[in-house]
Amino acid sequence: MKLYDWNIAPNPRRVRIFLAEKGIEVPTEEVGEGFELKKEYLEKNPHRTVPLLELDDGTLISEAPAICRYFETEHPEPPLMGRDAKERALVDMWERKAELEGGQGAGEVLRNGLPPYADRALAGYSVPIPQIEQLVERGKVRVAEFYKKMDERLGEATFLAGDNFSLADITALCVTDFATIIGLPVPDECANLKRWHAEVSARPSAAA
Amino acid sequence: MKLYDWNIAPNPRRVRIFLAEKGIEVPTEEVGEGFELKKEYLEKNPHRTVPLLELDDGTLISEAPAICRYFETEHPEPPLMGRDAKERALVDMWERKAELEGGQGAGEVLRNGLPPYADRALAGYSVPIPQIEQLVERGKVRVAEFYKKMDERLGEATFLAGDNFSLADITALCVTDFATIIGLPVPDECANLKRWHAEVSARPSAAA
Repeated sequence: MKLYDWNIAPNPRRVRIFLAEKGIEVPTEEVGEGFELKKEYLEKNPHRTVPLLELDDGTLISEAPAICRYFETEHPEPPLMGRDAKERALVDMWERKAELEGGQGAGEVLRNGLPPYADRALAGYSVPIPQIEQLVERGKVRVAEFYKKMDERLGEATFLAGDNFSLADITALCVTDFATIIGLPVPDECANLKRWHAEVSARPSAAA
Repeated sequence: MKLYDWNIAPNPRRVRIFLAEKGIEVPTEEVGEGFELKKEYLEKNPHRTVPLLELDDGTLISEAPAICRYFETEHPEPPLMGRDAKERALVDMWERKAELEGGQGAGEVLRNGLPPYADRALAGYSVPIPQIEQLVERGKVRVAEFYKKMDERLGEATFLAGDNFSLADITALCVTDFATIIGLPVPDECANLKRWHAEVSARPSAAA
């Protein structure tokens, strides 16, 4: 088994934190170089993204939450994807909100604004995807809305899915830190989100 | 328990087919009207999208795969989200590929090109999201790449996650039918995808 990783990218970090919380060690290989994925890796992985998990039988599992699902099923303790039907649904829901609103918004800002991503404005494509300048502004709006939504939710619950730390928190942490790195930090008025961010960042897994 | 539905939208159909495959009946309410969601519904659901599942304790579960996760846990038979760790990961992975590449691509074409969606180019926002003309072309490229990827996968496996019909097939079916409706049918050269599409469309659940 091997995990293909790219240390600076936000999506592999979701898996690294998840594994650290579970106490699982997996051999990893770094496949990023500058702003690119290495050529040999792109030839191996038709999905052209990180992270990627290669099982011993050669099966390739792409997509961070799918990789986490593999480990959640093989190593259920501690549960990070929900303990019953309702919590499982809430983990999936909040993880998607964090990724599809915040993560995609931050991705739009980065990939449509930075020269090295010219013609690679979306990850995972072998055909050119040109940058669209207006998506930089749209991405900023999406990140702002993500922060507002998370702040509201974290005013009514300790963690995104309720009482228990979960993959939803891991993804929202990675998205928040990624947005911060590209110049979109959590606004001061989001006190609940800041409380939560300090708490989840203090877990040892956050260093992963 | 109640499922908030919009008959013409692709995401609620994912849940309807899933429930039909499980043989579960849930009271539903239609909340769409023309090109809009009804105002009372938007006030109820802060996520402003369909489908939405309301549990008896008032919990709101948004996002189609999260709703399916709820029912998969409560009613495991027949399994539609994987039977073991590897299959579960492959279901999640292929479901995401279908939605994030094909579904989002088709959504870009529709929402950035159709006048009723002016300032609502992304679903789920309470702030204006202006249309961006270039996303219509980008969306078409994404749908074409989705078809190619699905066709390749379905040349090596009966269903997207392998030997068993799953939520990944349900989502890919809904995406394919939605793309077809907006003028982007499966190209003739995608023979594997066409074989699979005929098979999954012949299941009684496809009428849901």
